[in-house]
Amino acid sequence: MPDAERSAAHDERARPDDVSRTTASVRFGVNYTPSREWMHSWLSLRPDDVRRDFAAIAELGLDHVRVFPLWPVLQPNRTLIRAEALDDVRTVVDIAAEFELDASVDVLQGHLSSFDFVPSWLATWHDRNMFTEPAVVDAQAALVRSLGSRLADAPNFLGLTLGNEVNQFSDRPHPSPWPASQEQAERWLETLLDAARDAAPHATHVHSEYDAVWYLDGHPFTPAQASRMGAMTTVHSWIFNGTAQRYGGRSTASDRHAEYLIELSRAFQADPRRGIWLQEVGAPSNCLDEQEMPGFLEATVRAATRSAGLWGVTWWCSHDVDRGLADFPELEYSLGLIDQGGRVKETGRRLAELAAELRHPPAPAQRRVAVVIDVDDHDVPVSRTAMSPGGAIFQAWVDLCESGMDPAFVTSTDAAHRDILSARGIGELVRPDLSSSAVGRYASVNTDVAD
Amino acid sequence: MPDAERSAAHDERARPDDVSRTTASVRFGVNYTPSREWMHSWLSLRPDDVRRDFAAIAELGLDHVRVFPLWPVLQPNRTLIRAEALDDVRTVVDIAAEFELDASVDVLQGHLSSFDFVPSWLATWHDRNMFTEPAVVDAQAALVRSLGSRLADAPNFLGLTLGNEVNQFSDRPHPSPWPASQEQAERWLETLLDAARDAAPHATHVHSEYDAVWYLDGHPFTPAQASRMGAMTTVHSWIFNGTAQRYGGRSTASDRHAEYLIELSRAFQADPRRGIWLQEVGAPSNCLDEQEMPGFLEATVRAATRSAGLWGVTWWCSHDVDRGLADFPELEYSLGLIDQGGRVKETGRRLAELAAELRHPPAPAQRRVAVVIDVDDHDVPVSRTAMSPGGAIFQAWVDLCESGMDPAFVTSTDAAHRDILSARGIGELVRPDLSSSAVGRYASVNTDVAD
Repeated sequence: MPDAERSAAHDERARPDDVSRTTASVRFGVNYTPSREWMHSWLSLRPDDVRRDFAAIAELGLDHVRVFPLWPVLQPNRTLIRAEALDDVRTVVDIAAEFELDASVDVLQGHLSSFDFVPSWLATWHDRNMFTEPAVVDAQAALVRSLGSRLADAPNFLGLTLGNEVNQFSDRPHPSPWPASQEQAERWLETLLDAARDAAPHATHVHSEYDAVWYLDGHPFTPAQASRMGAMTTVHSWIFNGTAQRYGGRSTASDRHAEYLIELSRAFQADPRRGIWLQEVGAPSNCLDEQEMPGFLEATVRAATRSAGLWGVTWWCSHDVDRGLADFPELEYSLGLIDQGGRVKETGRRLAELAAELRHPPAPAQRRVAVVIDVDDHDVPVSRTAMSPGGAIFQAWVDLCESGMDPAFVTSTDAAHRDILSARGIGELVRPDLSSSAVGRYASVNTDVAD
Repeated sequence: MPDAERSAAHDERARPDDVSRTTASVRFGVNYTPSREWMHSWLSLRPDDVRRDFAAIAELGLDHVRVFPLWPVLQPNRTLIRAEALDDVRTVVDIAAEFELDASVDVLQGHLSSFDFVPSWLATWHDRNMFTEPAVVDAQAALVRSLGSRLADAPNFLGLTLGNEVNQFSDRPHPSPWPASQEQAERWLETLLDAARDAAPHATHVHSEYDAVWYLDGHPFTPAQASRMGAMTTVHSWIFNGTAQRYGGRSTASDRHAEYLIELSRAFQADPRRGIWLQEVGAPSNCLDEQEMPGFLEATVRAATRSAGLWGVTWWCSHDVDRGLADFPELEYSLGLIDQGGRVKETGRRLAELAAELRHPPAPAQRRVAVVIDVDDHDVPVSRTAMSPGGAIFQAWVDLCESGMDPAFVTSTDAAHRDILSARGIGELVRPDLSSSAVGRYASVNTDVAD
């Protein structure tokens, strides 16, 4: 962002209401994984299947769903956006309304549960960079605009997410990444967010990244983009990223990993009143026994709701993947709150209880101690590895948490501004030694992908 | 094939009726490229659109269509074969019957007009070799079986083609090939052809390759497989493979290129009565002016119908690709017999006339002179480059044609058997000098793919 804008934001940040919760209540919802045929159900949408699934979700007392159409179904050719596919998404949003569920819609899938859905006009012979090639970006903007327009007047439409974790396409370890510079990634986000706002000005449009944005040095998508672009910051928290492997599935590090990312993101905000959406978090079976999952869910949700500015928690996911569908990473078959027989699982019951209890949560934790994140002139962390599981910054957080504290984070830029610190209520700074041997042990989210 | 079987076939080949046409008439049809939304129309099939297209095709006096469902629509997950997608294919076959058109159906697309349609369970993170991995081959066999069963009792169902030119996935220049040995390619063909026969025993199931099978040394798919496996040999003839570039679009080499491939394939037949299907041939605008196209079409069809054993000619394609669809190679927008306004083009009229005239063609050409193709112990040509445009074998064919002859081909194995030669009516052998400088100038069919 321009310096002037940033200063203005700093001035705002100095206001006394900065640490108060920015929304009156916390929203609880679920990422919608259709019980029958998973996302392939978009190929022949059966409204009654969606009704049955949404009825079960509403039964849990949840208030929203996040919905994932498939890119090749929406836009099979660069210049063909299928009206029928847009209609199908609208139908699903309207069905959500029947159950008093709000609906948030991801546009570019893109990537879901280890599977990439890349339209043929970007694959193999037609391989073109989705982030940098003007004609390709234009086409995505056209799709965002079309879908936004089709949904704009749905009263329960929350907004668009540009795509689910499409940042994975921009970098290693993707097997065939489309590289982009940080500037190009920013321009891509800007273009598509503008398109979304044009099409549906009153909705809340966001973008989402998997945690390479926080943990992977050199990654084109940056913490500042995550924390400043779009109407809210989204956080995707998966403890199979090295956290559970290093610290244990029910360790402090794992239980508070979502909170960690939320607080990390706050350090990069320019607008102190910005909302943060814990858009994805789940209890993966490669890190947790089945009996540990409800406890992990509860600890995660309680920790996250102690953060100021939390807009909501959207659990991953609604329904277990049918074991009749092959090739999913094992953990995907048991992430649902509801099993294949339609029975609510213990995690589902626990989330329902927590949603009832924490919809109006107690005051957020006071965070007097802040860990300093060294950043460069563009607010890019000097070492994202140090922020990753096992890294010096990550470890400092764990140590402070285990000593009973509720730490915050602050960039080295902001740490030099006494007014910013005092506005955030920060009285003490911890500066981790980035040269320490505790380097990150970041295991990509794609670790569990079948090969 | 085993030696014993091969000897038996040789014995049969010695019978006097060998050079007679194996079918009473020649079939004329068209590769069906839906006028609206191209193959993407499978995503929401509109029967009335198909009716309009098939009515126009039937108007031309053609008797069959070749139809291309998309693999990711049929089988979006390895273990999910969509009943709705099978039903849609059946619907299209049934609509063909309304217009007295027979229908041949390709299963694995796979590849069409420069676009690859690879299901997500074989792409990127899930990249697995479609030819060699047992679970993947099993899944394809299951799809072949399901589609075969769904179509088996349709009175106008001709049979399955395993997939359109899927051999391109097995070798260079594909950007991410799945390599296979010739034995593995053969096992793959065998497995899927068996599945087709199991599902629809009375239909004519074939496989198809682009011309790397004839022209590319080391290619996993071989001339012997093309000429011996499945119920017929299929020939795909595209003069943009180097032929037109070297010899000219209306040269003898181009006009007789389809005939050349037909005759090449005959040299590798084990069963002399085997049918040969010119399954794809078209008039590409990168090699021919618009005014040259009808003449090229006529020359191609007349030349092909002078070959014995020709089952039929299936022109590529029915309808021009809509210019509203982006990223096709330029030539694809004008290959149709019918334009986007529904008007029959000059090529369409010419094919209609030829179909009427040549449905019962005159006796095939007598081919007394044969060019010898040196083969190894497995009947693999010693140099497929020599067979490719500009290669010594190709050049020998062109020279003989230009001197007014109708040459045949014979493998070096068969050339050693006087009985085989005399059964085929061959009285003279030409042995091209493979060490000559006239090496092949093979330009892959993928030359025109956008990048």
